[in-house]
Amino acid sequence: MDIRAQKTFEALFALEDVREMLRQSLPGSTGPTDMDGFNEQIRHIRSVIDDLEAGTGVPEITKIGGTLGIRSREEEYVNIQPIQAAGRLTPEARKALIAYGDGYSTCDSCRKPFRLDKISKPPIADFHQELAAFLNMDTARVVPGARRGFQAVTSSLVKPGDTVIVSSLAHYTEFLAVEGAGGVVKEVPLNENNIITADAVADRIEDVTAETGKLPALIMIDHFDYQLANEHDVSGIGKVARQYDIPFLYNGAYTVGVMPVDGKKIGADFIVGSGHKSMASPAPSGVLATTDEWADVVFRTTQMTGDLTNRKFGVKEVEMLGCTLMGSTLMAMIASFPTVKERTQKWDEELKKSNFLMDKLLEIEGSAVLSEYPRKHALSKVDTTGSFDVVAEKHKRRGFFFSDELTKRGIVGEFAGATRAWKLSTYGLSWEKINYLADSLQDIAEKYEIKVNRDKL
Amino acid sequence: MDIRAQKTFEALFALEDVREMLRQSLPGSTGPTDMDGFNEQIRHIRSVIDDLEAGTGVPEITKIGGTLGIRSREEEYVNIQPIQAAGRLTPEARKALIAYGDGYSTCDSCRKPFRLDKISKPPIADFHQELAAFLNMDTARVVPGARRGFQAVTSSLVKPGDTVIVSSLAHYTEFLAVEGAGGVVKEVPLNENNIITADAVADRIEDVTAETGKLPALIMIDHFDYQLANEHDVSGIGKVARQYDIPFLYNGAYTVGVMPVDGKKIGADFIVGSGHKSMASPAPSGVLATTDEWADVVFRTTQMTGDLTNRKFGVKEVEMLGCTLMGSTLMAMIASFPTVKERTQKWDEELKKSNFLMDKLLEIEGSAVLSEYPRKHALSKVDTTGSFDVVAEKHKRRGFFFSDELTKRGIVGEFAGATRAWKLSTYGLSWEKINYLADSLQDIAEKYEIKVNRDKL
Repeated sequence: MDIRAQKTFEALFALEDVREMLRQSLPGSTGPTDMDGFNEQIRHIRSVIDDLEAGTGVPEITKIGGTLGIRSREEEYVNIQPIQAAGRLTPEARKALIAYGDGYSTCDSCRKPFRLDKISKPPIADFHQELAAFLNMDTARVVPGARRGFQAVTSSLVKPGDTVIVSSLAHYTEFLAVEGAGGVVKEVPLNENNIITADAVADRIEDVTAETGKLPALIMIDHFDYQLANEHDVSGIGKVARQYDIPFLYNGAYTVGVMPVDGKKIGADFIVGSGHKSMASPAPSGVLATTDEWADVVFRTTQMTGDLTNRKFGVKEVEMLGCTLMGSTLMAMIASFPTVKERTQKWDEELKKSNFLMDKLLEIEGSAVLSEYPRKHALSKVDTTGSFDVVAEKHKRRGFFFSDELTKRGIVGEFAGATRAWKLSTYGLSWEKINYLADSLQDIAEKYEIKVNRDKL
Repeated sequence: MDIRAQKTFEALFALEDVREMLRQSLPGSTGPTDMDGFNEQIRHIRSVIDDLEAGTGVPEITKIGGTLGIRSREEEYVNIQPIQAAGRLTPEARKALIAYGDGYSTCDSCRKPFRLDKISKPPIADFHQELAAFLNMDTARVVPGARRGFQAVTSSLVKPGDTVIVSSLAHYTEFLAVEGAGGVVKEVPLNENNIITADAVADRIEDVTAETGKLPALIMIDHFDYQLANEHDVSGIGKVARQYDIPFLYNGAYTVGVMPVDGKKIGADFIVGSGHKSMASPAPSGVLATTDEWADVVFRTTQMTGDLTNRKFGVKEVEMLGCTLMGSTLMAMIASFPTVKERTQKWDEELKKSNFLMDKLLEIEGSAVLSEYPRKHALSKVDTTGSFDVVAEKHKRRGFFFSDELTKRGIVGEFAGATRAWKLSTYGLSWEKINYLADSLQDIAEKYEIKVNRDKL
């Protein structure tokens, strides 16, 4: 590992050991019980800081708890992994993780009616309001991942045998959420540009209704899909949903937290977003937002009564199973939120970077962009069958030659060994890194005598 | 905040800012892009370390991201909060949170068949094996909280209208899990000692079967309940479950991670544990373990097929919704696991501490233990109606006088204002802290002229 990254981790870890000494001490004591140990540890930290400053020294810690390697992917590399980019934590989120890591850390001031989204200290209740406003919806809850948002909606709206309209590019978690509720999925076909149109949704609704004698129970469509990150006509689909009076779940796993999302404008009944995918938050986290019309359905409170004790559980919500993210996961999400809100306003700049990189890739002869082009998203699927894969065909490392070359340049996150169709994301990379990435791809191409039409644009 | 705690946090946060500089730099560069900024930050860190060592200085950071206070409950206080004790992170877990905070941090080396519990680097697959062995069960999965474990089981086994046998002290999340599946709960009455016996469970099964003409679909009983932390006869109940051939879910939210749990010996078909409650892990986390007999039911893989695309999703498990804890939550759980395994072997010592404190409380005249006594758990419910509440009746601060006195002594986690029945946990506190706590309670009593029979035992 880069020695400065190494020493940063060592200093952080050494400080956690100091923190543990404070935790073991009695309150009001003038210092840690083991003052000698404390002073020794301070001396150690100083020496780690010296190494960090100088960029020298040898690694002293390689495993956490003897088993877990230290992950330095973001410190050492340009990470183009397609789904990790927008889930990178902000420094504020990392600080929140540090301060709120303990299990029930959010619950110190939990008072009646004892529900996570009602807690005012830390400002969890305010965050829920802001989250709903951010999506222009009426109510929001945090959930352990977008999938748990899908599940809450299907479990509330879909009865066994009901049909749910999904995209031909729908994520597997949507299928699973429907399966859990006992429903049946019907996919909407893509048009010639690999886009889900409103007309195609309307047609599929007509087909299904004719076939089953019943309207679908739900429409669930991804704004940008996970395979190509193409933009689908969610606003048009919102209108179709209204016309047929079918509730519409907008899957914003690839949008909420990176670009502006206006639920009312889209005509969404439900918005689902992913914290660890697009909101600079730890896993598992996500958001489920809805309108006043549907809040009482999906966030219905328990009706159970203990038959012997007559116990009732008031405001606990069945689909949320009461409280959801009771600790650092939520606190990190809240800590990232100001940055997340701000960055959605800079989506145009992210698109410039995405398109710039695609253009540089297209300068490498034999390369193509499989996603819609120009790009409307930072995530793209590319095809290098006519460029890097030609090399791979004859290379003794096969497709891994490409991974080797990228790694050598400090670039990671491609699907190791893949040189035909593969995905990458430019999200959140600085222009400096984008340029570095573009140059690296072109350098690799030229090294293997693939023609590069540099600066053709 | 205690200045050493304050400066520890400031140093940790300042190092996160250094880390961010490394993240922004190009790979292979000799140092951060902004070397002046870096050097300035190193100087700052040194001055924070000086303050930390000396125990001097003034707080420079009071809010993370301008909104979140720094939580120092564990650094500054003796925390007796009943459900937080065993969810405190180990130092190793805190280091794992630091290294693995980013969204999909566990997924760098995810390969076919693309499922969290199959990932070998970091050693997530091994951890799953160890987790099953730890509970003496055949298979285990991590879930976002114990409640999601209940949900997976009820959703798999309970059909609408089915009956589920629960305790009269069952946690509300068990009710909600049954409600979500459309089931009906039937509570088992407590005996005169507030214990659920095997006979009482058998009687209730007979009643329900006579009444509904059908055996209950599931028995779900807490080993130790959340209200009194009394021990219920789970082994006896396991036998009854076998006799009636009804699956038995052992709720180990208060046991898994603090005391030895042997699923086969108990005769459990399912074991559910809570990471943030009892496994020194961040929220939301938990475990669901089962036997070979039930694994194919509760961990069944998806049967869905895209009707147009013919897509299938292979090994993805319906109730898990594919992957569950894809980041730092799981990594912290893994990092704590060696300590957690070890500490379950020291449960007797925890019981000594628990009983010692209860005895010291009982020396305060008018106090009582509402939980079974002697204690078999670190969590207890006590009654101070005849002691501290007598003071509260006449005090201008009412019950808050007691909280004030505790806080003054650096003790937190009581339910603020409560002086009649309240809960506390001694779990994981050192003997030094236990003695301090006992002395503090007796000192408060004597200050208000409540008679204390010191060292009566």
